[in-house]
Amino acid sequence: MVGVVVWLTGLPGSGKTTIGRIVQEELRSRGYRVELLDGDWVRATINVEAGFTREERRKHLLRVAWIARLLARNEVIVLCSFVSPYRDVRAEVRRIVSEETPFSEVYVKCSLEEAMRRDPKGLYRKALRGEIKNFTGISDPYEEPENPDLVIDTEATSPEEAAETLKNHVLNLIKQR
Amino acid sequence: MVGVVVWLTGLPGSGKTTIGRIVQEELRSRGYRVELLDGDWVRATINVEAGFTREERRKHLLRVAWIARLLARNEVIVLCSFVSPYRDVRAEVRRIVSEETPFSEVYVKCSLEEAMRRDPKGLYRKALRGEIKNFTGISDPYEEPENPDLVIDTEATSPEEAAETLKNHVLNLIKQR
Repeated sequence: MVGVVVWLTGLPGSGKTTIGRIVQEELRSRGYRVELLDGDWVRATINVEAGFTREERRKHLLRVAWIARLLARNEVIVLCSFVSPYRDVRAEVRRIVSEETPFSEVYVKCSLEEAMRRDPKGLYRKALRGEIKNFTGISDPYEEPENPDLVIDTEATSPEEAAETLKNHVLNLIKQR
Repeated sequence: MVGVVVWLTGLPGSGKTTIGRIVQEELRSRGYRVELLDGDWVRATINVEAGFTREERRKHLLRVAWIARLLARNEVIVLCSFVSPYRDVRAEVRRIVSEETPFSEVYVKCSLEEAMRRDPKGLYRKALRGEIKNFTGISDPYEEPENPDLVIDTEATSPEEAAETLKNHVLNLIKQR
């Protein structure tokens, strides 16, 4: 058994954490060690005061990259669910992790219109009212992945179907080793 | 197999990382998953710009506590080697970790005179010349543990003997579960 870091990137509300949670539960029930790291967890634990400027997001994500690498080299499947909107920062993340463990970038794809319609935490509404600064999709850019290892379109599929696709991808990554 | 966090506290130069490395190597060779986290690693990865004021040290160590907890709940033996000079911060660390995984505080004991004589990184000399601020033992206090789970006196024993004591302590912690 070898660990792997699967990095889910996509707009807020695209479904990253939702499908990550389903996969975590299914793989755990099959006996795998799995961790899901997401922004809510990180901001509640190792990065309490993190902001959302470009540089703060960058430092935040590089920290996560190191932690994911540390877990993965101890045979944990690490699902990282982060908007991670900047291409160059995602490339840095990949560099850090893949020095030691397998890394896979998954683009959880969803149109801005649909993500705004879902708005599970009410954050788009707040951002549109100007109550949140640097909000991806509204007042901060999302740079689409150019060569993701997998694209999961969450507009065309149900969360369960999307999770099935992700789960199979993870299992393939592990088998390849 | 269950994970555990073993927190080594003591003056700079007391031998924490030296004996931690020996134990890591021996336990790994016996098939255990072991990580040694120390200040050098953390400051090179997840906390690049960390300073040495009381509050910066605190944030630094609480981050480590969360990472150690995350590893330990995935069945890793985590040896944490940090001066961690403040009693209240060590208590916070213990609270965070022991919410979920076993935690043990080990005091790596050595007199200031002996630590200054060893001075493996030349830091005491720098601190005495005023080139380093907030240096534990010189310009910042070290608060001795009041009820550590184990005391290892590195003045009275060789590094190999000290490591043997620590290794047996770790193995006992694992067996107790």
